[in-house]
Amino acid sequence: MKEVGEAKVCHYTDIPAEEFGAEAPGVKIRQLIDEERDGAPFYVLRMIEIEPGGNTPEHSHGFEHENFVVEGEGEVLIGDDWHSICKGSVVFVPSGIRHQYRNSGNSVLRFLCGIPAERFRE
Amino acid sequence: MKEVGEAKVCHYTDIPAEEFGAEAPGVKIRQLIDEERDGAPFYVLRMIEIEPGGNTPEHSHGFEHENFVVEGEGEVLIGDDWHSICKGSVVFVPSGIRHQYRNSGNSVLRFLCGIPAERFRE
Repeated sequence: MKEVGEAKVCHYTDIPAEEFGAEAPGVKIRQLIDEERDGAPFYVLRMIEIEPGGNTPEHSHGFEHENFVVEGEGEVLIGDDWHSICKGSVVFVPSGIRHQYRNSGNSVLRFLCGIPAERFRE
Repeated sequence: MKEVGEAKVCHYTDIPAEEFGAEAPGVKIRQLIDEERDGAPFYVLRMIEIEPGGNTPEHSHGFEHENFVVEGEGEVLIGDDWHSICKGSVVFVPSGIRHQYRNSGNSVLRFLCGIPAERFRE
């Protein structure tokens, strides 16, 4: 882990997209800025990419999500309600609330997802 | 201030763009997700918008920036070096490093800028 952060300027496509796994069909994640590689002390910025028809698992955890939709169309479940999202949507999912994202469009749904650095996650 | 965060789904244009001030000509800021309005406990997500020819002040402070460029073209100064940025650029400016953003294109330069919540800023 980097003790002191170093400046970084790159394009998000320079950072590899990793398969999320069987619980999230059609989902990839890029770790844009994090503590391990960049020495970012506070929060992790990730890009989530969901293929048409794909979805993240329905789950909850003890930390929040801050999202910004970069492209595509989809829906986010927060608690018991589904909300439509598109390019430019801002989503705040508080800690402890059940949530899920799904792509309901015909192109990749791509959104930023910020979470606290690992040591701050409950 | 909200003690417990509430879920939020909106479009970034629903959130007012405030003039930054005389030290940042042509710059506006939208507070997308913060502690005061949303109860976000950890970090603040803002949208910075710079008109063609505009720039933020050259300055430094004791907390980091995490940026993602949504649209437009420009440059970011980090330390002594200027870097070109465009749609999809990822920028990490560590704490304590001199930095500045400027729009060198012909349309609005629009980028996300995440910083720690106020109580964590030095």
